[in-house]
Amino acid sequence: MNNSTSLRVRLPVLVLLMEVVFLGLFAGFVTYDDNANAKFQNNETNPMDNSLYRDYPFFADVQVMIFVGFGCLLAFLRLYGFSGMVFNFLTATFTIQWAILVQGYFQFYSDGKIHLGVINLLNAEFACAVVLISFGAVLGKTSPVQLLVMALLEVPIFAVTEWAVLKYLKINDAGGSILIHLFACYFGLGVTFVLYRPSLNDGHVKEITSYQSDILSLMGTLFLWVFWPSFNSALTLKGDDQHRAVLHTFIGLSSSTMTAFALSAVFNKRGKLTMADIQNVTLAGGVTVGASVDMMISPAAAYALGIMGCTACFMGYRYLTPFLARRFRIQDQCGIHNLHGLTGLISCTAGICAILMANEETYGPSMYQIFTHRAPMEGDPKLLELQQLIPGLRPGLGRTAKEQVLYQVAAIFSTIGAAAVGGVLTGFALKLPCLAMPSDEFCFDDELFFDVPSDFLSSSLAF
Amino acid sequence: MNNSTSLRVRLPVLVLLMEVVFLGLFAGFVTYDDNANAKFQNNETNPMDNSLYRDYPFFADVQVMIFVGFGCLLAFLRLYGFSGMVFNFLTATFTIQWAILVQGYFQFYSDGKIHLGVINLLNAEFACAVVLISFGAVLGKTSPVQLLVMALLEVPIFAVTEWAVLKYLKINDAGGSILIHLFACYFGLGVTFVLYRPSLNDGHVKEITSYQSDILSLMGTLFLWVFWPSFNSALTLKGDDQHRAVLHTFIGLSSSTMTAFALSAVFNKRGKLTMADIQNVTLAGGVTVGASVDMMISPAAAYALGIMGCTACFMGYRYLTPFLARRFRIQDQCGIHNLHGLTGLISCTAGICAILMANEETYGPSMYQIFTHRAPMEGDPKLLELQQLIPGLRPGLGRTAKEQVLYQVAAIFSTIGAAAVGGVLTGFALKLPCLAMPSDEFCFDDELFFDVPSDFLSSSLAF
Amino acid sequence: MNNSTSLRVRLPVLVLLMEVVFLGLFAGFVTYDDNANAKFQNNETNPMDNSLYRDYPFFADVQVMIFVGFGCLLAFLRLYGFSGMVFNFLTATFTIQWAILVQGYFQFYSDGKIHLGVINLLNAEFACAVVLISFGAVLGKTSPVQLLVMALLEVPIFAVTEWAVLKYLKINDAGGSILIHLFACYFGLGVTFVLYRPSLNDGHVKEITSYQSDILSLMGTLFLWVFWPSFNSALTLKGDDQHRAVLHTFIGLSSSTMTAFALSAVFNKRGKLTMADIQNVTLAGGVTVGASVDMMISPAAAYALGIMGCTACFMGYRYLTPFLARRFRIQDQCGIHNLHGLTGLISCTAGICAILMANEETYGPSMYQIFTHRAPMEGDPKLLELQQLIPGLRPGLGRTAKEQVLYQVAAIFSTIGAAAVGGVLTGFALKLPCLAMPSDEFCFDDELFFDVPSDFLSSSLAF
Repeated sequence: MNNSTSLRVRLPVLVLLMEVVFLGLFAGFVTYDDNANAKFQNNETNPMDNSLYRDYPFFADVQVMIFVGFGCLLAFLRLYGFSGMVFNFLTATFTIQWAILVQGYFQFYSDGKIHLGVINLLNAEFACAVVLISFGAVLGKTSPVQLLVMALLEVPIFAVTEWAVLKYLKINDAGGSILIHLFACYFGLGVTFVLYRPSLNDGHVKEITSYQSDILSLMGTLFLWVFWPSFNSALTLKGDDQHRAVLHTFIGLSSSTMTAFALSAVFNKRGKLTMADIQNVTLAGGVTVGASVDMMISPAAAYALGIMGCTACFMGYRYLTPFLARRFRIQDQCGIHNLHGLTGLISCTAGICAILMANEETYGPSMYQIFTHRAPMEGDPKLLELQQLIPGLRPGLGRTAKEQVLYQVAAIFSTIGAAAVGGVLTGFALKLPCLAMPSDEFCFDDELFFDVPSDFLSSSLAF
Repeated sequence: MNNSTSLRVRLPVLVLLMEVVFLGLFAGFVTYDDNANAKFQNNETNPMDNSLYRDYPFFADVQVMIFVGFGCLLAFLRLYGFSGMVFNFLTATFTIQWAILVQGYFQFYSDGKIHLGVINLLNAEFACAVVLISFGAVLGKTSPVQLLVMALLEVPIFAVTEWAVLKYLKINDAGGSILIHLFACYFGLGVTFVLYRPSLNDGHVKEITSYQSDILSLMGTLFLWVFWPSFNSALTLKGDDQHRAVLHTFIGLSSSTMTAFALSAVFNKRGKLTMADIQNVTLAGGVTVGASVDMMISPAAAYALGIMGCTACFMGYRYLTPFLARRFRIQDQCGIHNLHGLTGLISCTAGICAILMANEETYGPSMYQIFTHRAPMEGDPKLLELQQLIPGLRPGLGRTAKEQVLYQVAAIFSTIGAAAVGGVLTGFALKLPCLAMPSDEFCFDDELFFDVPSDFLSSSLAF
Repeated sequence: MNNSTSLRVRLPVLVLLMEVVFLGLFAGFVTYDDNANAKFQNNETNPMDNSLYRDYPFFADVQVMIFVGFGCLLAFLRLYGFSGMVFNFLTATFTIQWAILVQGYFQFYSDGKIHLGVINLLNAEFACAVVLISFGAVLGKTSPVQLLVMALLEVPIFAVTEWAVLKYLKINDAGGSILIHLFACYFGLGVTFVLYRPSLNDGHVKEITSYQSDILSLMGTLFLWVFWPSFNSALTLKGDDQHRAVLHTFIGLSSSTMTAFALSAVFNKRGKLTMADIQNVTLAGGVTVGASVDMMISPAAAYALGIMGCTACFMGYRYLTPFLARRFRIQDQCGIHNLHGLTGLISCTAGICAILMANEETYGPSMYQIFTHRAPMEGDPKLLELQQLIPGLRPGLGRTAKEQVLYQVAAIFSTIGAAAVGGVLTGFALKLPCLAMPSDEFCFDDELFFDVPSDFLSSSLAF
């Protein structure tokens, strides 16, 4: 604990500098979107048709997940509760602002302006989820300055990848299995690979939970669990698509939760339950249903996906995480590779199967709304026929199922590649000497960056 | 702590077996309802009219109540916080899946399939509330295996009772006072009657709270309190009925909360407040307004019901619970008979009064929407007259108020009867030797079923 | 700890007396509003158009803020967690009931009746926020009886002020910067001025936090943060106005949060973060954007307001609060003057600027919906012209921007004046000997008013 980790200059300089930049960009380039602009309201606009009422309920649920759910979940260490919750708060706030600007440039830019509505905030919260997942890989080993720098670099890399994949590859990924979970996971692994600390492979004396921190972390899990259907369905098409997304997510989470309890008991030598399993592995189903969450996969398939995702995630925690740390120098603190990587890959595979099996018999003509790129091209007589059944159906690219699958596969590999490379480069940036990286000894310790109350010492003495 | 309570084989076998059964049933019998089925979307379907947008906000609120609210509330014991929250999580997840299938068979079955939408999940969460309330009677004295077996038996008994009452007796019970609260209460009492443990009548050394566990439990109370209006109004008719349900629940909870504070102070010898009262008795009003929650009972009546329910509940905790334990071998751990039984009975009585006092002058023609069985029968000229005022009014049974009351009374007694008998039988099932029942010594102790962190011991030493 | 602070008689007498009064007033004067009244439903009423669906989502969010958010935030002291959460619960419940009646009389009264709908509950929760903010000034130094008396007096003073300002001055104050934050702040300061305790100026041995209480308080902050956009937008016009209110609040909170981290680090001698800053100062932006929250101020202005509000608030905590305590005998326990007073003043100034800068070019004709008093008067030909663009536009007062500003200024001063005088008078009332005021020694101590669990003592010994 010395000058090298004091935040007194570093943090304010970075934060205030970025605020000036953000303020300048907001002033120069951000305006309201039509739904938030008084000027575009007239006698043909019904206030209750404002997009606010379609987006805000989902946004509010995701807000709870990001700030309360993630925050509590990351506070599972006995001496690192302040840091878990507070760094989550800081990183999330910073990331959302930055993502509003960067994503806004790529997705909501026209006439020289970023057009801002609640839908941008919702998208920015997804970008924020990406950064927070990556944060899980390096929890306890990074300063808040490093986390902000990570967010600063990860958001544009993510936004470019997202933009390129959506614009050029045009994939189906309603729950964000590819773009959110896989990207976040491999980016985080890239960062932690560079930040490897050999001494932590044998465990750290402060890397323990307490009774209260375990309960707090479980509360985080429960908030994530409860609102995950909103997360997975927030960006789907409205109507039956969103309805299915809610159902599949709930079913997937449920079967995954039951499986987690079974596996936790069976793999514990004394036949007891392990809190870490219940805090993490129960959530695997939410990720696993992601890529096919809006498709007609059947409730049973969502159930099966929950079981599969949970099993892979559990085994990953047990066998793969220690293996990656020892052999590949990848210290994945919260096991994001299990909860987001393995489950994400299963999810992508399921999505591909669902695409291959989709047909008009099951979906009716609205198949071409879900698989928008399989809709007939402009000029195709089939398009006119479909438009009589579904008015307003947009022309697509006339892709076959197999073509769409190839693009999905391309998206998976390019996303993983971009994330891993971006993560490694970001890792090197985080090693810059001025970023207040904690020494090994002060990892997992709130005292390094916080004024702690007088009973903190008694907690530390207890181990 | 020996092999007889190890979960290593028992829990996984039961859970995985049930998962296979559930998966089979989902695969064989569960399909999407029309609002979640892509095939039924066409040019006449407006996505924003999807039932999702009517049901999901209430479902999300009830989710928070079930998983966070109940979970925290049940974590009030110093050494049983993990168990309270985690067994609630497991039991709730299991129950909802099972209820989707069983209730689905009774209520959402047609053409050989259960039709699944968010409305089924919402109904299943109500079935889940039933099981969690019953769980309150045996908290601390049951293993997770026993809880799952209890849920396994309680859900079908509940679903059959619910189906029979709704189909044959056709009652008014918008807030579920009869079907949820009374059923859950008497089922739970039946179970705990069979599981009687004489040694616990003198109290248990571990049956104490801690400062943190009391705060955690209060958080659960607050989440239940805040979202209870959604719970009571989730299944009412849309429009003014749901509006009144929200108002009455809020008013009933408010007056009940104030009364709880007054009684807590007056009955404490040193004139102090008791946390247990504030955690539990404050909620009595939410149950008490249940049976008449959508009727035109007037705000003042909701206020009075809150006061009455709270008083009965408080006196129940003080005098009836110890009495039932000593004289009738009914050890009601969380006092569900006070919070759900006594209040439920008051609520039913109030509902009967409201039915007797209902008239067209107060309700207008929409009286026959609320009291649907009092609407004129098919063919009655009065029906046509009413249908001009309320288009789409469905023909009823032409019941008079007094006839309706007889059916309400029949429903109350048959529900209590079915619940008590079902509970006693379930209690015997829970005594099967392989279900890992805790010994008296290890009641109220997380260590029996959990790997606990190192500071758990210091908590136990403190008493 | 003696008879003078026993709640055994005082609290029940006051509570039960008020319940009888409230019940009488409910019975005599409260009926349902048209949206909750079955009688007014007919074939022209679409149930989904019920005002419930416009108001309830915002009401539910504000409920979480009031009961969970405020409750946890106020539980930041190590030995005062029960009191913080429980007195918040009691005071809030009491205040809302009282406000339903008093505000109802001033705002929802017609034909001899108060017409009750969810919109009244929502308004009452805002009155409740006023009382809870004032409570912050005297936290730890007041008995629950005193708090109820404070609420009993503050609600009518607030309701009259609100009514007079809205009826006679007719101001713009969507986020409640003037009527909620300034009123609450100066009322609370008035109360605490009278309740001055010289011995507390040097700090109190129990005025400390613990690791767990700091985390709990931060959870409160996060719930407030997450739902603040709902708070600020709940009472705006529907449509684009509400949309902007959500955007501005989110942006203001975000920039304010980042600024709080920067300032916290820069002003800490050891370059660490201080939890109290993160718990309180981060929220400043939500207040600062209040007065102009629905106007076309531009996202950048919201961003700048967040930074300014946060800076003022932070400096206030650091320099002004100790100064006020020493020089002016104003002991502001939670620093409400920083979080609500200074920020409220900045917000009012920003609102005035926004009013002066508003023009039809920016707002289009809907300018006269937001600045409703600037709409042309009945009979003005310009009104007819505007009504063709915005059907249903109500005639206004034809005020110019400068006239409107004068009224805003008048509202600010008269609100502050009424609040301060009301607060001082209330303070004297709270000094009545029968109200169980804690002695200096037992300030900040749960044991005075609660039966505490056995581990409470070990917490107290730790300091």
